Amino acid sequence: MATLVVAARVATVEGSSSTERDDLLVTEEPLEIRLGFGNSEHRREIRLSVTMRTPGHDEDLVRGFLHSEGIVAREEELLRVVPCANVREEEQGNVVRAELHPSVELDPARWQRNFYTTSSCGVCGKSSIEAVHLQCKRPLVPMGAIDPGILTALPERMRMAQTVFRHTGGIHAAALFDRKGELLVLREDVGRHNAVDKVIGAALSTDMPLVSSMLLVSGRAGFELVQKCVVVGVPVMAAIGAPSSLAVKLAQESGLCLIGFLRGERFNIYAS
Amino acid sequence: MATLVVAARVATVEGSSSTERDDLLVTEEPLEIRLGFGNSEHRREIRLSVTMRTPGHDEDLVRGFLHSEGIVAREEELLRVVPCANVREEEQGNVVRAELHPSVELDPARWQRNFYTTSSCGVCGKSSIEAVHLQCKRPLVPMGAIDPGILTALPERMRMAQTVFRHTGGIHAAALFDRKGELLVLREDVGRHNAVDKVIGAALSTDMPLVSSMLLVSGRAGFELVQKCVVVGVPVMAAIGAPSSLAVKLAQESGLCLIGFLRGERFNIYAS
Repeated sequence: MATLVVAARVATVEGSSSTERDDLLVTEEPLEIRLGFGNSEHRREIRLSVTMRTPGHDEDLVRGFLHSEGIVAREEELLRVVPCANVREEEQGNVVRAELHPSVELDPARWQRNFYTTSSCGVCGKSSIEAVHLQCKRPLVPMGAIDPGILTALPERMRMAQTVFRHTGGIHAAALFDRKGELLVLREDVGRHNAVDKVIGAALSTDMPLVSSMLLVSGRAGFELVQKCVVVGVPVMAAIGAPSSLAVKLAQESGLCLIGFLRGERFNIYAS
Repeated sequence: MATLVVAARVATVEGSSSTERDDLLVTEEPLEIRLGFGNSEHRREIRLSVTMRTPGHDEDLVRGFLHSEGIVAREEELLRVVPCANVREEEQGNVVRAELHPSVELDPARWQRNFYTTSSCGVCGKSSIEAVHLQCKRPLVPMGAIDPGILTALPERMRMAQTVFRHTGGIHAAALFDRKGELLVLREDVGRHNAVDKVIGAALSTDMPLVSSMLLVSGRAGFELVQKCVVVGVPVMAAIGAPSSLAVKLAQESGLCLIGFLRGERFNIYAS
Protein backbone atom coordinates (compact mmCIF):
# COMPACT_ATOMS: atom_id res chain seq x y z
CA MET A 1 0.00 0.00 0.00
CA ALA A 2 1.40 3.37 -1.01
CA THR A 3 1.85 5.81 1.83
CA LEU A 4 1.00 9.37 0.83
CA VAL A 5 2.44 10.87 3.98
CA VAL A 6 5.14 9.94 6.45
CA ALA A 7 5.55 11.02 10.06
CA ALA A 8 8.39 13.30 11.05
CA ARG A 9 9.63 15.05 14.13
CA VAL A 10 9.93 18.79 13.61
CA ALA A 11 10.97 21.79 15.68
CA THR A 12 8.76 24.84 15.23
CA VAL A 13 10.47 28.11 16.08
CA GLU A 14 8.38 31.21 16.80
CA GLY A 15 10.13 34.28 18.08
CA SER A 16 12.37 33.02 20.87
CA SER A 17 10.46 29.81 21.61
CA SER A 18 11.01 26.41 20.02
CA THR A 19 8.59 23.48 20.27
CA GLU A 20 9.21 19.89 19.20
CA ARG A 21 6.20 18.16 17.70
CA ASP A 22 5.04 15.39 15.37
CA ASP A 23 4.34 16.40 11.81
CA LEU A 24 3.42 14.80 8.49
CA LEU A 25 5.43 15.10 5.29
CA VAL A 26 4.21 14.35 1.80
CA THR A 27 5.96 11.23 0.48
CA GLU A 28 8.37 11.62 -2.43
CA GLU A 29 9.93 8.57 -4.11
CA PRO A 30 11.35 7.93 -7.59
CA LEU A 31 9.24 6.05 -10.15
CA GLU A 32 10.93 4.38 -13.08
CA ILE A 33 8.82 3.99 -16.21
CA ARG A 34 9.81 1.17 -18.56
CA LEU A 35 8.38 0.73 -22.02
CA GLY A 36 7.90 -2.69 -23.64
CA PHE A 37 7.63 -2.50 -27.43
CA GLY A 38 8.45 -4.25 -30.70
CA ASN A 39 6.75 -7.09 -32.56
CA SER A 40 6.05 -10.46 -30.97
CA GLU A 41 9.29 -11.99 -32.27
CA HIS A 42 11.52 -9.18 -31.08
CA ARG A 43 10.23 -7.55 -27.92
CA ARG A 44 12.40 -4.84 -26.42
CA GLU A 45 12.38 -2.77 -23.27
CA ILE A 46 13.67 0.72 -22.67
CA ARG A 47 13.86 2.86 -19.58
CA LEU A 48 11.66 5.76 -20.58
CA SER A 49 12.13 8.07 -17.63
CA VAL A 50 12.30 8.47 -13.91
CA THR A 51 10.11 10.96 -12.11
CA MET A 52 10.07 11.94 -8.47
CA ARG A 53 6.46 11.40 -7.45
CA THR A 54 4.12 10.76 -4.55
CA PRO A 55 3.37 7.01 -4.58
CA GLY A 56 -0.17 5.94 -5.47
CA HIS A 57 -2.11 5.82 -8.75
CA ASP A 58 1.13 4.99 -10.54
CA GLU A 59 -0.62 3.21 -13.40
CA ASP A 60 -2.74 6.33 -13.98
CA LEU A 61 0.41 8.45 -13.88
CA VAL A 62 2.08 6.36 -16.56
CA ARG A 63 -1.03 6.15 -18.74
CA GLY A 64 -1.55 9.90 -18.53
CA PHE A 65 2.15 10.61 -19.14
CA LEU A 66 2.30 8.42 -22.25
CA HIS A 67 -0.78 10.08 -23.72
CA SER A 68 -0.09 13.67 -22.71
CA GLU A 69 3.49 13.51 -23.99
CA GLY A 70 2.30 12.11 -27.29
CA ILE A 71 4.19 8.81 -26.93
CA VAL A 72 0.92 6.93 -27.27
CA ALA A 73 -1.54 8.36 -29.79
CA ARG A 74 -4.56 6.09 -29.38
CA GLU A 75 -6.03 4.08 -26.51
CA GLU A 76 -5.43 0.77 -28.32
CA GLU A 77 -1.70 1.39 -28.57
CA LEU A 78 -1.23 0.92 -24.83
CA LEU A 79 -2.03 -2.66 -23.81
CA ARG A 80 -1.48 -2.32 -20.08
CA VAL A 81 0.58 -0.71 -17.32
CA VAL A 82 1.82 -3.10 -14.64
CA PRO A 83 4.10 -2.84 -11.62
CA CYS A 84 7.37 -4.72 -12.20
CA ALA A 85 7.76 -7.62 -9.81
CA ASN A 86 11.24 -8.69 -10.92
CA VAL A 87 13.06 -5.90 -9.12
CA ARG A 88 15.03 -5.72 -5.91
CA GLU A 89 13.06 -5.59 -2.69
CA GLU A 90 13.80 -1.94 -1.97
CA GLU A 91 12.64 -1.00 -5.48
CA GLN A 92 9.28 -2.77 -5.16
CA GLY A 93 6.50 -0.38 -6.08
CA ASN A 94 8.87 2.09 -7.74
CA VAL A 95 9.15 0.43 -11.16
CA VAL A 96 6.30 0.08 -13.66
CA ARG A 97 6.23 -1.26 -17.20
CA ALA A 98 3.96 -0.03 -19.96
CA GLU A 99 3.30 -2.58 -22.71
CA LEU A 100 2.74 -1.16 -26.17
CA HIS A 101 0.78 -3.07 -28.81
CA PRO A 102 3.11 -4.99 -31.16
CA SER A 103 1.79 -2.95 -34.10
CA VAL A 104 3.14 0.30 -32.63
CA GLU A 105 6.26 1.46 -34.34
CA LEU A 106 8.12 3.49 -31.79
CA ASP A 107 9.59 6.63 -33.24
CA PRO A 108 12.52 7.72 -31.04
CA ALA A 109 11.38 11.31 -31.51
CA ARG A 110 8.16 10.38 -29.76
CA TRP A 111 9.77 9.15 -26.58
CA GLN A 112 12.38 11.81 -26.16
CA ARG A 113 11.35 13.64 -23.03
CA ASN A 114 11.77 17.01 -24.71
CA PHE A 115 10.30 15.98 -28.00
CA TYR A 116 10.04 19.53 -29.28
CA THR A 117 13.76 19.55 -29.81
CA THR A 118 14.25 16.84 -32.35
CA SER A 119 16.79 17.76 -34.98
CA SER A 120 14.16 18.74 -37.51
CA CYS A 121 12.80 21.34 -35.17
CA GLY A 122 14.15 24.67 -33.99
CA VAL A 123 14.49 25.67 -30.37
CA CYS A 124 12.09 28.54 -30.04
CA GLY A 125 8.57 29.20 -28.85
CA LYS A 126 7.15 28.89 -32.36
CA SER A 127 8.64 25.46 -32.96
CA SER A 128 7.62 24.29 -29.47
CA ILE A 129 4.03 25.14 -30.35
CA GLU A 130 4.28 23.49 -33.76
CA ALA A 131 5.64 20.33 -32.15
CA VAL A 132 2.65 20.19 -29.81
CA HIS A 133 0.27 20.54 -32.73
CA LEU A 134 1.99 17.64 -34.48
CA GLN A 135 1.25 15.51 -31.39
CA CYS A 136 -2.41 16.44 -31.24
CA LYS A 137 -4.86 13.70 -31.90
CA ARG A 138 -7.70 16.04 -32.79
CA PRO A 139 -8.61 19.73 -32.67
CA LEU A 140 -10.07 20.87 -29.35
CA VAL A 141 -13.85 20.97 -29.17
CA PRO A 142 -14.84 24.41 -27.84
CA MET A 143 -17.10 24.20 -24.79
CA GLY A 144 -18.81 27.51 -25.47
CA ALA A 145 -19.48 30.14 -22.85
CA ILE A 146 -18.94 28.97 -19.27
CA ASP A 147 -20.91 30.56 -16.47
CA PRO A 148 -18.41 32.56 -14.33
CA GLY A 149 -20.15 31.22 -11.23
CA ILE A 150 -19.26 27.67 -12.23
CA LEU A 151 -15.60 28.60 -12.67
CA THR A 152 -15.24 30.50 -9.40
CA ALA A 153 -16.70 27.55 -7.49
CA LEU A 154 -14.02 25.12 -8.72
CA PRO A 155 -11.09 26.00 -6.38
CA GLU A 156 -13.14 25.44 -3.23
CA ARG A 157 -14.43 22.11 -4.59
CA MET A 158 -10.88 21.04 -5.29
CA ARG A 159 -9.66 22.10 -1.84
CA MET A 160 -12.50 20.25 -0.11
CA ALA A 161 -11.50 17.06 -1.91
CA GLN A 162 -7.77 17.38 -1.18
CA THR A 163 -6.64 15.15 1.64
CA VAL A 164 -2.86 15.26 1.56
CA PHE A 165 -2.57 19.03 1.33
CA ARG A 166 -4.61 19.44 4.48
CA HIS A 167 -2.09 17.33 6.38
CA THR A 168 1.17 18.48 4.87
CA GLY A 169 0.61 21.77 3.03
CA GLY A 170 3.16 20.49 0.58
CA ILE A 171 1.56 19.08 -2.51
CA HIS A 172 0.20 20.08 -5.89
CA ALA A 173 -3.30 19.20 -6.99
CA ALA A 174 -5.02 18.80 -10.32
CA ALA A 175 -8.72 18.12 -10.81
CA LEU A 176 -11.03 17.43 -13.70
CA PHE A 177 -14.55 18.86 -13.72
CA ASP A 178 -17.44 18.40 -16.11
CA ARG A 179 -19.00 21.43 -17.81
CA LYS A 180 -21.41 21.91 -14.91
CA GLY A 181 -18.52 22.10 -12.45
CA GLU A 182 -19.00 18.64 -10.94
CA LEU A 183 -15.73 17.09 -9.76
CA LEU A 184 -14.81 14.03 -11.82
CA VAL A 185 -11.40 13.17 -10.43
CA LEU A 186 -8.73 14.77 -8.25
CA ARG A 187 -5.11 13.78 -7.73
CA GLU A 188 -2.35 15.17 -5.53
CA ASP A 189 1.40 14.82 -6.08
CA VAL A 190 4.68 16.50 -5.14
CA GLY A 191 5.13 17.13 -8.86
CA ARG A 192 2.74 19.42 -10.75
CA HIS A 193 3.17 17.45 -13.96
CA ASN A 194 2.53 14.19 -12.17
CA ALA A 195 -0.72 15.44 -10.66
CA VAL A 196 -1.98 16.38 -14.13
CA ASP A 197 -0.81 13.09 -15.66
CA LYS A 198 -2.55 11.11 -12.91
CA VAL A 199 -5.81 12.93 -13.59
CA ILE A 200 -5.52 12.35 -17.33
CA GLY A 201 -4.64 8.69 -16.82
CA ALA A 202 -7.57 8.16 -14.46
CA ALA A 203 -9.93 9.81 -16.94
CA LEU A 204 -8.65 7.66 -19.81
CA SER A 205 -8.89 4.40 -17.91
CA THR A 206 -12.49 5.03 -16.89
CA ASP A 207 -13.68 6.62 -20.13
CA MET A 208 -14.34 10.04 -18.65
CA PRO A 209 -15.00 12.59 -21.40
CA LEU A 210 -11.75 14.58 -21.47
CA VAL A 211 -12.93 16.49 -24.54
CA SER A 212 -15.79 18.11 -22.63
CA SER A 213 -13.98 18.67 -19.32
CA MET A 214 -12.19 21.47 -17.50
CA LEU A 215 -8.83 20.95 -15.79
CA LEU A 216 -7.93 22.97 -12.69
CA VAL A 217 -4.38 23.12 -11.34
CA SER A 218 -3.37 24.43 -7.92
CA GLY A 219 -0.30 26.28 -9.16
CA ARG A 220 0.77 28.13 -12.26
CA ALA A 221 0.00 27.43 -15.89
CA GLY A 222 3.27 26.80 -17.69
CA PHE A 223 3.76 25.68 -21.27
CA GLU A 224 4.11 22.01 -20.43
CA LEU A 225 0.83 21.79 -18.53
CA VAL A 226 -1.11 23.55 -21.28
CA GLN A 227 0.60 21.20 -23.73
CA LYS A 228 -0.79 18.19 -21.88
CA CYS A 229 -4.33 19.55 -22.14
CA VAL A 230 -3.96 20.33 -25.84
CA VAL A 231 -2.51 16.91 -26.67
CA VAL A 232 -5.23 14.90 -24.93
CA GLY A 233 -8.06 17.24 -25.95
CA VAL A 234 -9.09 19.02 -22.73
CA PRO A 235 -10.59 22.32 -23.99
CA VAL A 236 -10.52 24.40 -20.77
CA MET A 237 -7.66 24.84 -18.32
CA ALA A 238 -7.84 27.00 -15.20
CA ALA A 239 -5.01 27.80 -12.80
CA ILE A 240 -4.98 29.36 -9.34
CA GLY A 241 -1.71 31.05 -10.34
CA ALA A 242 -0.33 32.93 -13.32
CA PRO A 243 0.25 31.64 -16.84
CA SER A 244 3.51 32.11 -18.76
CA SER A 245 3.91 33.83 -22.12
CA LEU A 246 4.33 30.60 -24.06
CA ALA A 247 1.44 28.91 -22.27
CA VAL A 248 -0.84 31.75 -23.37
CA LYS A 249 0.45 31.61 -26.93
CA LEU A 250 -0.05 27.86 -27.15
CA ALA A 251 -3.56 28.20 -25.74
CA GLN A 252 -4.45 30.95 -28.21
CA GLU A 253 -3.14 29.01 -31.20
CA SER A 254 -4.82 25.78 -30.10
CA GLY A 255 -8.27 27.10 -29.23
CA LEU A 256 -7.82 26.22 -25.56
CA CYS A 257 -9.68 28.43 -23.08
CA LEU A 258 -7.04 29.45 -20.52
CA ILE A 259 -8.05 30.96 -17.17
CA GLY A 260 -5.52 32.27 -14.65
CA PHE A 261 -5.57 33.77 -11.15
CA LEU A 262 -8.84 32.00 -10.38
CA ARG A 263 -9.33 33.33 -6.85
CA GLY A 264 -12.50 34.24 -5.01
CA GLU A 265 -14.99 35.87 -7.38
CA ARG A 266 -12.28 36.88 -9.86
CA PHE A 267 -10.35 35.37 -12.72
CA ASN A 268 -8.47 36.38 -15.85
CA ILE A 269 -9.18 35.03 -19.32
CA TYR A 270 -5.93 34.76 -21.33
CA ALA A 271 -7.27 32.79 -24.27
CA SER A 272 -10.76 31.73 -25.23
CA MET B 1 18.34 41.51 -25.03
CA ALA B 2 16.33 38.98 -23.10
CA THR B 3 12.83 40.08 -22.26
CA LEU B 4 11.67 38.86 -18.87
CA VAL B 5 8.08 39.87 -19.45
CA VAL B 6 5.81 40.27 -22.45
CA ALA B 7 2.68 42.37 -22.79
CA ALA B 8 -0.68 40.68 -23.16
CA ARG B 9 -4.30 41.68 -23.41
CA VAL B 10 -6.41 40.04 -20.74
CA ALA B 11 -10.06 40.05 -19.69
CA THR B 12 -10.61 40.20 -15.95
CA VAL B 13 -13.96 38.85 -14.84
CA GLU B 14 -15.33 39.76 -11.42
CA GLY B 15 -18.86 38.74 -10.58
CA SER B 16 -20.90 39.78 -13.59
CA SER B 17 -18.50 42.42 -14.93
CA SER B 18 -15.65 41.89 -17.39
CA THR B 19 -12.87 44.39 -18.07
CA GLU B 20 -10.30 44.26 -20.84
CA ARG B 21 -6.87 45.51 -19.83
CA ASP B 22 -3.14 45.32 -20.56
CA ASP B 23 -1.19 42.84 -18.51
CA LEU B 24 2.33 41.44 -18.29
CA LEU B 25 3.24 37.77 -18.56
CA VAL B 26 6.49 36.16 -17.49
CA THR B 27 8.43 35.02 -20.56
CA GLU B 28 8.91 31.29 -21.10
CA GLU B 29 11.12 29.98 -23.90
CA PRO B 30 13.06 26.74 -24.43
CA LEU B 31 16.82 26.70 -23.86
CA GLU B 32 18.94 23.99 -25.43
CA ILE B 33 22.15 23.12 -23.62
CA ARG B 34 24.90 21.60 -25.74
CA LEU B 35 28.04 20.08 -24.31
CA GLY B 36 31.40 20.16 -26.11
CA PHE B 37 33.82 17.50 -24.88
CA GLY B 38 36.60 15.11 -25.88
CA ASN B 39 40.31 15.60 -26.42
CA SER B 40 41.71 18.16 -28.83
CA GLU B 41 41.97 15.64 -31.69
CA HIS B 42 38.45 14.32 -31.35
CA ARG B 43 36.04 16.97 -30.12
CA ARG B 44 32.39 15.97 -29.87
CA GLU B 45 29.12 17.71 -29.11
CA ILE B 46 25.98 16.34 -27.51
CA ARG B 47 22.61 17.87 -26.82
CA LEU B 48 22.50 17.65 -23.05
CA SER B 49 19.00 18.87 -22.39
CA VAL B 50 16.29 21.38 -23.10
CA THR B 51 14.66 23.32 -20.32
CA MET B 52 11.74 25.73 -20.45
CA ARG B 53 13.11 28.86 -18.82
CA THR B 54 12.77 32.61 -18.52
CA PRO B 55 15.45 34.13 -20.79
CA GLY B 56 18.30 35.96 -19.10
CA HIS B 57 21.39 34.78 -17.17
CA ASP B 58 21.51 31.71 -19.38
CA GLU B 59 25.24 31.21 -18.86
CA ASP B 60 24.67 31.19 -15.10
CA LEU B 61 21.83 28.73 -15.57
CA VAL B 62 24.04 26.33 -17.52
CA ARG B 63 27.02 26.71 -15.17
CA GLY B 64 24.81 26.09 -12.14
CA PHE B 65 23.03 23.17 -13.81
CA LEU B 66 26.29 21.44 -14.75
CA HIS B 67 27.64 21.77 -11.22
CA SER B 68 24.46 21.05 -9.28
CA GLU B 69 23.71 17.94 -11.34
CA GLY B 70 27.24 16.68 -10.81
CA ILE B 71 28.14 16.73 -14.52
CA VAL B 72 31.06 19.03 -13.74
CA ALA B 73 32.91 18.28 -10.53
CA ARG B 74 35.46 21.10 -10.38
CA GLU B 75 35.57 24.69 -11.61
CA GLU B 76 38.47 23.95 -13.98
CA GLU B 77 36.50 21.28 -15.83
CA LEU B 78 34.21 23.88 -17.38
CA LEU B 79 36.12 26.16 -19.75
CA ARG B 80 33.28 28.45 -20.79
CA VAL B 81 29.58 28.75 -21.58
CA VAL B 82 28.78 30.63 -24.76
CA PRO B 83 25.62 31.36 -26.76
CA CYS B 84 25.63 29.46 -30.07
CA ALA B 85 25.72 31.81 -33.03
CA ASN B 86 25.45 29.14 -35.74
CA VAL B 87 21.75 28.54 -35.29
CA ARG B 88 18.69 29.64 -37.20
CA GLU B 89 17.47 33.16 -36.63
CA GLU B 90 14.42 32.19 -34.60
CA GLU B 91 16.61 30.06 -32.31
CA GLN B 92 19.06 32.88 -31.57
CA GLY B 93 19.47 33.22 -27.82
CA ASN B 94 17.90 29.84 -27.12
CA VAL B 95 20.96 27.64 -27.65
CA VAL B 96 24.10 27.67 -25.50
CA ARG B 97 27.20 25.51 -25.58
CA ALA B 98 29.27 24.53 -22.56
CA GLU B 99 32.89 23.66 -23.34
CA LEU B 100 34.47 21.07 -21.10
CA HIS B 101 38.23 20.87 -20.60
CA PRO B 102 39.83 18.26 -22.90
CA SER B 103 41.04 16.34 -19.86
CA VAL B 104 37.48 15.66 -18.69
CA GLU B 105 36.40 12.12 -19.40
CA LEU B 106 32.66 12.29 -19.73
CA ASP B 107 30.96 9.41 -17.99
CA PRO B 108 27.53 8.90 -19.57
CA ALA B 109 26.16 8.21 -16.09
CA ARG B 110 27.12 11.75 -15.18
CA TRP B 111 25.10 13.42 -17.88
CA GLN B 112 21.99 11.32 -17.68
CA ARG B 113 19.37 13.74 -16.49
CA ASN B 114 18.18 11.35 -13.83
CA PHE B 115 21.59 10.14 -12.83
CA TYR B 116 20.34 8.37 -9.74
CA THR B 117 18.91 5.68 -11.95
CA THR B 118 21.97 4.30 -13.62
CA SER B 119 21.91 0.55 -13.91
CA SER B 120 24.10 0.03 -10.86
CA CYS B 121 21.60 1.81 -8.71
CA GLY B 122 18.17 0.86 -7.47
CA VAL B 123 15.09 3.00 -7.84
CA CYS B 124 14.26 3.88 -4.28
CA GLY B 125 14.74 6.74 -1.86
CA LYS B 126 17.83 5.13 -0.33
CA SER B 127 19.62 4.77 -3.64
CA SER B 128 18.59 8.27 -4.71
CA ILE B 129 20.31 9.61 -1.60
CA GLU B 130 23.38 7.41 -2.13
CA ALA B 131 23.68 8.66 -5.71
CA VAL B 132 23.68 12.27 -4.49
CA HIS B 133 26.43 11.49 -2.02
CA LEU B 134 28.52 9.99 -4.81
CA GLN B 135 28.23 13.31 -6.64
CA CYS B 136 29.26 15.42 -3.68
CA LYS B 137 32.52 17.23 -3.94
CA ARG B 138 32.96 17.63 -0.21
CA PRO B 139 31.02 17.24 3.03
CA LEU B 140 28.89 20.24 3.98
CA VAL B 141 30.49 22.67 6.41
CA PRO B 142 28.01 23.26 9.25
CA MET B 143 27.23 26.95 9.78
CA GLY B 144 26.46 26.54 13.45
CA ALA B 145 23.48 28.15 15.19
CA ILE B 146 21.69 30.77 13.09
CA ASP B 147 19.85 33.59 14.82
CA PRO B 148 16.09 33.05 14.17
CA GLY B 149 15.77 36.77 13.55
CA ILE B 150 18.16 36.51 10.62
CA LEU B 151 16.16 33.66 9.07
CA THR B 152 12.76 35.30 9.44
CA ALA B 153 14.04 38.45 7.74
CA LEU B 154 15.04 36.59 4.55
CA PRO B 155 11.65 36.27 2.78
CA GLU B 156 10.97 39.99 2.90
CA ARG B 157 14.48 40.75 1.60
CA MET B 158 13.92 38.35 -1.27
CA ARG B 159 10.52 39.84 -2.11
CA MET B 160 11.90 43.37 -2.09
CA ALA B 161 14.53 42.36 -4.63
CA GLN B 162 12.13 40.51 -6.93
CA THR B 163 11.19 42.52 -9.97
CA VAL B 164 9.40 40.11 -12.28
CA PHE B 165 7.09 38.66 -9.64
CA ARG B 166 5.80 42.12 -8.81
CA HIS B 167 4.70 42.57 -12.43
CA THR B 168 3.42 39.10 -13.26
CA GLY B 169 2.84 37.13 -10.06
CA GLY B 170 4.00 34.15 -12.03
CA ILE B 171 7.56 33.29 -11.28
CA HIS B 172 9.72 31.36 -8.87
CA ALA B 173 12.58 32.96 -7.02
CA ALA B 174 15.75 31.68 -5.40
CA ALA B 175 18.19 33.81 -3.43
CA LEU B 176 21.54 33.29 -1.78
CA PHE B 177 22.32 35.04 1.52
CA ASP B 178 25.47 35.17 3.60
CA ARG B 179 25.41 34.02 7.22
CA LYS B 180 24.41 37.49 8.40
CA GLY B 181 21.39 37.48 6.10
CA GLU B 182 22.78 39.89 3.48
CA LEU B 183 21.45 39.18 0.00
CA LEU B 184 24.22 37.99 -2.32
CA VAL B 185 22.26 37.15 -5.46
CA LEU B 186 18.64 36.66 -6.52
CA ARG B 187 17.24 35.08 -9.66
CA GLU B 188 13.69 34.61 -10.95
CA ASP B 189 12.51 32.01 -13.44
CA VAL B 190 9.35 30.17 -14.51
CA GLY B 191 11.11 26.98 -13.43
CA ARG B 192 12.02 26.42 -9.78
CA HIS B 193 15.07 24.35 -10.71
CA ASN B 194 16.23 27.02 -13.13
CA ALA B 195 16.02 29.78 -10.51
CA VAL B 196 18.22 27.72 -8.19
CA ASP B 197 20.68 26.82 -10.97
CA LYS B 198 20.97 30.50 -11.98
CA VAL B 199 21.80 31.47 -8.41
CA ILE B 200 24.40 28.71 -8.10
CA GLY B 201 25.91 29.60 -11.47
CA ALA B 202 26.11 33.28 -10.57
CA ALA B 203 27.78 32.43 -7.27
CA LEU B 204 30.32 30.16 -8.95
CA SER B 205 31.24 32.64 -11.65
CA THR B 206 31.87 35.43 -9.14
CA ASP B 207 33.51 33.32 -6.43
CA MET B 208 30.78 33.83 -3.88
CA PRO B 209 31.28 31.48 -0.92
CA LEU B 210 28.57 28.86 -1.50
CA VAL B 211 29.88 26.78 1.41
CA SER B 212 29.00 29.48 3.94
CA SER B 213 25.73 30.63 2.37
CA MET B 214 22.01 30.07 2.84
CA LEU B 215 19.67 29.42 -0.07
CA LEU B 216 16.05 30.55 0.09
CA VAL B 217 13.42 29.31 -2.39
CA SER B 218 9.97 30.82 -2.91
CA GLY B 219 8.17 27.49 -3.19
CA ARG B 220 8.53 24.03 -1.76
CA ALA B 221 11.62 22.04 -0.90
CA GLY B 222 11.61 18.88 -2.99
CA PHE B 223 14.34 16.28 -3.26
CA GLU B 224 15.92 17.73 -6.37
CA LEU B 225 16.38 21.22 -4.92
CA VAL B 226 17.95 19.87 -1.73
CA GLN B 227 20.15 17.71 -3.94
CA LYS B 228 21.49 20.79 -5.72
CA CYS B 229 22.47 22.38 -2.39
CA VAL B 230 24.15 19.22 -1.16
CA VAL B 231 26.11 18.69 -4.39
CA VAL B 232 27.51 22.24 -4.55
CA GLY B 233 28.05 22.54 -0.80
CA VAL B 234 25.38 25.02 0.37
CA PRO B 235 24.85 24.08 4.06
CA VAL B 236 21.50 25.81 4.75
CA MET B 237 18.33 25.71 2.66
CA ALA B 238 15.11 27.48 3.58
CA ALA B 239 11.76 27.29 1.80
CA ILE B 240 8.60 29.35 2.09
CA GLY B 241 6.65 26.13 1.49
CA ALA B 242 6.76 22.55 2.72
CA PRO B 243 9.51 19.97 2.26
CA SER B 244 8.91 16.42 1.02
CA SER B 245 9.80 13.21 2.85
CA LEU B 246 12.83 12.46 0.68
CA ALA B 247 14.08 16.04 0.83
CA VAL B 248 14.10 15.83 4.63
CA LYS B 249 15.84 12.44 4.58
CA LEU B 250 18.52 13.68 2.20
CA ALA B 251 19.05 16.78 4.34
CA GLN B 252 19.35 14.71 7.53
CA GLU B 253 21.83 12.27 6.00
CA SER B 254 23.90 15.06 4.43
CA GLY B 255 24.16 17.44 7.36
CA LEU B 256 22.16 20.11 5.55
CA CYS B 257 20.09 22.42 7.72
CA LEU B 258 16.60 22.39 6.18
CA ILE B 259 14.03 25.04 7.12
CA GLY B 260 10.43 24.94 5.85
CA PHE B 261 7.30 27.12 6.14
CA LEU B 262 9.44 30.21 6.72
CA ARG B 263 6.62 32.73 7.15
CA GLY B 264 6.37 35.76 9.39
CA GLU B 265 8.04 35.09 12.74
CA ARG B 266 7.72 31.32 12.38
CA PHE B 267 9.57 28.45 10.74
CA ASN B 268 10.04 24.70 11.04
CA ILE B 269 13.41 22.96 11.34
CA TYR B 270 13.32 19.59 9.57
CA ALA B 271 17.03 18.82 9.69
CA SER B 272 19.93 20.57 11.36
